[in-house]
Amino acid sequence: MSSFLSKNYEKLVPYVPGEQVNTKVIKLNTNESPFPPSPKVLQALSEDVINRLNLYSDPELKELRSAIAEQFSVTPDMVFCGNGSDDVLAFAIMGFCGHGGSLACPEISYGFYPVYADIFGVELEQIPLKDDFSINAEDYTGINKNIVIANPNAPTGLVLSNDEVEKIVSSNPDNLVIIDEAYMAFCGKGCSELIKKYKNLLVVRTFSKSHSLAGLRVGFGIADKEIIADLNKLKYSFNPYNINTLSIKAAAAAIADNDYYDDKIARIVEVREKTIAELRALGFNCTESKANFIFASSDKISAGELYARLREKGILVRHFSKPKIENYLRITVGAAQDMETLVSAIKEITEG
Amino acid sequence: MSSFLSKNYEKLVPYVPGEQVNTKVIKLNTNESPFPPSPKVLQALSEDVINRLNLYSDPELKELRSAIAEQFSVTPDMVFCGNGSDDVLAFAIMGFCGHGGSLACPEISYGFYPVYADIFGVELEQIPLKDDFSINAEDYTGINKNIVIANPNAPTGLVLSNDEVEKIVSSNPDNLVIIDEAYMAFCGKGCSELIKKYKNLLVVRTFSKSHSLAGLRVGFGIADKEIIADLNKLKYSFNPYNINTLSIKAAAAAIADNDYYDDKIARIVEVREKTIAELRALGFNCTESKANFIFASSDKISAGELYARLREKGILVRHFSKPKIENYLRITVGAAQDMETLVSAIKEITEG
Repeated sequence: MSSFLSKNYEKLVPYVPGEQVNTKVIKLNTNESPFPPSPKVLQALSEDVINRLNLYSDPELKELRSAIAEQFSVTPDMVFCGNGSDDVLAFAIMGFCGHGGSLACPEISYGFYPVYADIFGVELEQIPLKDDFSINAEDYTGINKNIVIANPNAPTGLVLSNDEVEKIVSSNPDNLVIIDEAYMAFCGKGCSELIKKYKNLLVVRTFSKSHSLAGLRVGFGIADKEIIADLNKLKYSFNPYNINTLSIKAAAAAIADNDYYDDKIARIVEVREKTIAELRALGFNCTESKANFIFASSDKISAGELYARLREKGILVRHFSKPKIENYLRITVGAAQDMETLVSAIKEITEG
Repeated sequence: MSSFLSKNYEKLVPYVPGEQVNTKVIKLNTNESPFPPSPKVLQALSEDVINRLNLYSDPELKELRSAIAEQFSVTPDMVFCGNGSDDVLAFAIMGFCGHGGSLACPEISYGFYPVYADIFGVELEQIPLKDDFSINAEDYTGINKNIVIANPNAPTGLVLSNDEVEKIVSSNPDNLVIIDEAYMAFCGKGCSELIKKYKNLLVVRTFSKSHSLAGLRVGFGIADKEIIADLNKLKYSFNPYNINTLSIKAAAAAIADNDYYDDKIARIVEVREKTIAELRALGFNCTESKANFIFASSDKISAGELYARLREKGILVRHFSKPKIENYLRITVGAAQDMETLVSAIKEITEG
């Protein structure tokens, strides 16, 4: 740390993203889609669009917000777009919970929530999961705190029902409830319908997982228009042109191509179910993950050792050295063939 | 404002970007380049790159930081990249000046500096310019505050020499001095050489102006590696994947194409000088702008009226309703033909 950095950040521990690699490996560690983006993305990034990059991108993001609004049957003033959903989460936690405000989140969840709490000076309460790794909605009912919950949760993949989400939202009317639906496309429609009923709900989504666009960095939030106006106020005070023209065009084209993505999502779900069944047949304990990853543990080998042995074989998965989940691996659902290679490798390691 | 937003942001007044328009106008209001980006940008955004957007971008930005480091004869660990230079400025002011820290900047300068001070709780001192709109380096010597200066300054276009910058940097060794060189490519090499000598200097640059890539959103900072490590610590706690793969590839290709951009910059400078001469011949007072814009005032017509009359004719320039400069227009140096149209229009308006 230099002598110039504010003392507020002395103890800040940044988020550690999953490893990015250049070498040829089977990469099942950051929940990317195994499919390329929709061909409409390639069409949208035309020579004409690229040659006009000398002009600023639209800070209001009208084209992209309209395209998203249409998909979710809301108006564009109920949509906020960020440079990845991390950007949306950062503005939301800074704006609504920052500087001594409150935030509650599951103890086991997206590892970034505690980092946001730290950087923005938020009083964070981390609520333990039940023994089966599920979230107990009752723990969040009427707690009079801002709340962020990943649904499906990560890295467990377990889902809260919309009824459970509604109980949490309706019982905390004076606080913001953020439902981070990064993985929702792999199991359902999510809770955005509730936004018409509740002014304190922010639903966060991303193009990174279901829409094969992790490298494009586009995420969004849907909420009552007053919440969106607040988020825009912060954005215009931090980085008004937060999404570039290429991302605007590509994401707007992608989100309209339901045929393409419905098919890809269905194929990922199919491979997920098949792989979970195969791992269970090998004696693994797998959660009922509804996301594009599997959360698995074996009695025969520690997760740390299995992670290392798979890595030696050129298969990258994610291992979190964190109490309660240190014996689990989070494995992205990749291409069907790669998952077969994975299962064979695991079989060889555990039985060979 | 919703009832959920932190009271800290109640009085926050966001930055107002220059107007973006869809209709056919001559757009001389946001200092964009009139030239398309280098053809190497188009090549870099290949079908293969686009089809691999399912994978995350490199959060370390190795390719882009190396390309920039090479141009500035520094090492990649002395380069920090942001989603536009606004992103770099935001992290720097948050990290080094935030939460009761200090910052001094010229009273007339980039309008975003006071907004950053506001959102991050910085004690801001705005130091008046001299009567001729130049910055008095003495006003910043040994003031024991963090400092941000745009050089060339905006909207005046006036430049501080490297000797003056060095006096400011060397006399405030315990504070960070940010030199925002967004427009430096239009007049010189800038002060990045000084970084090898001073640990408290952060030089900020952008691809938006000189590199015809405003729509791509890439900016960067060059500083001692400890400052860069601090900025990365904040980035990894806010938005680790802050630049997408397309921007990484396009910006890395652009910055290496000196032949293309040297030519375009020379043409912009030539048109700037010609237009300034023509406006002066019409009785205008123009600063000695070294940027890609002209700062001009007339005794014959108020800037507010001239702005409106030009707008009626489909020519968009920027007018700041701010004391001391309310009678000036900031006019981007556009294509040669557009500048001729501008001068003719001004002649018609002012001479009837």
